[in-house]
Amino acid sequence: MRFRNLKNKEEIINSCSYVVKDSEKYIGKWNSLFDNSNPIYIEIGMGKGKFIVENAINYPNINFIGIERQDNALARAVRNIDEGISNLKLISMDAINIDEVFSKEIDRIYLNFSDPWPKNRQEKRRLTSKVFLDKYEKIFKDKQEIYLRTDNEGLFTYSIESLSSNNYALEDVTLDLHRDEENLITTEYEDKFSKNGDKIYSLKARK
Amino acid sequence: MRFRNLKNKEEIINSCSYVVKDSEKYIGKWNSLFDNSNPIYIEIGMGKGKFIVENAINYPNINFIGIERQDNALARAVRNIDEGISNLKLISMDAINIDEVFSKEIDRIYLNFSDPWPKNRQEKRRLTSKVFLDKYEKIFKDKQEIYLRTDNEGLFTYSIESLSSNNYALEDVTLDLHRDEENLITTEYEDKFSKNGDKIYSLKARK
Repeated sequence: MRFRNLKNKEEIINSCSYVVKDSEKYIGKWNSLFDNSNPIYIEIGMGKGKFIVENAINYPNINFIGIERQDNALARAVRNIDEGISNLKLISMDAINIDEVFSKEIDRIYLNFSDPWPKNRQEKRRLTSKVFLDKYEKIFKDKQEIYLRTDNEGLFTYSIESLSSNNYALEDVTLDLHRDEENLITTEYEDKFSKNGDKIYSLKARK
Repeated sequence: MRFRNLKNKEEIINSCSYVVKDSEKYIGKWNSLFDNSNPIYIEIGMGKGKFIVENAINYPNINFIGIERQDNALARAVRNIDEGISNLKLISMDAINIDEVFSKEIDRIYLNFSDPWPKNRQEKRRLTSKVFLDKYEKIFKDKQEIYLRTDNEGLFTYSIESLSSNNYALEDVTLDLHRDEENLITTEYEDKFSKNGDKIYSLKARK
């Protein structure tokens, strides 16, 4: 999703205490930044941040890091977050650089409504392509967990193929998440989309 | 699917040259029965046989074996098959006994519109449960290929989970086979079903 330009986005982002600047310098030691040894869950493409912020509030014993490459989205997220959530950090970066910022320390990755990059020649940009799975391999601690939600059928079936080919076992596969599960923490996009009665595909991948 | 009772079904089946009696005695040597070393593809639950008969006619260099546990279905299949298809055999049996009839000689298994056994306590009866995958392991030659089609969402998502958990890589996953592929060889059930505009789920599993 694209967001309209926000004139003072740099200023908003830079003045926010949740946003970690020079994130590369914490590689391998994010737990020390959180000052605890709790699991770390990241969301790649957090958009306006509803999902990760609500998760951080609901699960204080997990550390959450939201990643977003569009500063127009990140700035909008930042404006809405209350102060004092100690288990939340945000990073402005493109996921392609994720292995320069984390190393063997992530417990779970959330991919919510990622860009489907539908053309064949765009395959490598999909967040479940082998390019990215190889990078995730480097940042996961020991167990690997990827939780995916999408409204895009092509990205969903592609992800099933790519994840299973890379030795992930798939669990809780559903073609209609909101029919099958209640009390979900959702994204802004998801709320808008499922109000129309459209289906959300979802799965959990582990290895 | 259940078929109405056919009074003379035993007679029809016993007099058919395609049906292999005492199938256990060919274990490990089905190629000798076909008198060639071509690949062997089996369909478990062939119903009235349209899919496997059309495949046998279209692919003379593959040996096809149809398996059906309901003699009411098998007898109906048998009545419709022309003579002289040398690469086709049929077996009346329950798939639970499949490893008593084949050993390290099957190249592909087709599972078309298998009984979904939707209740949790019925899981073991599903043809993609670990119970059956372990049996298939014993009958496959080297590469393992399972081609699945179903209109049942529950069986489809269950199969994705079970196959990926048993180290199969999934390919050509589709939520609408008849939109995505043309010139398919179909089953009787599939023709009826997709005429209603209902979607057929499909995947190929390999390891």
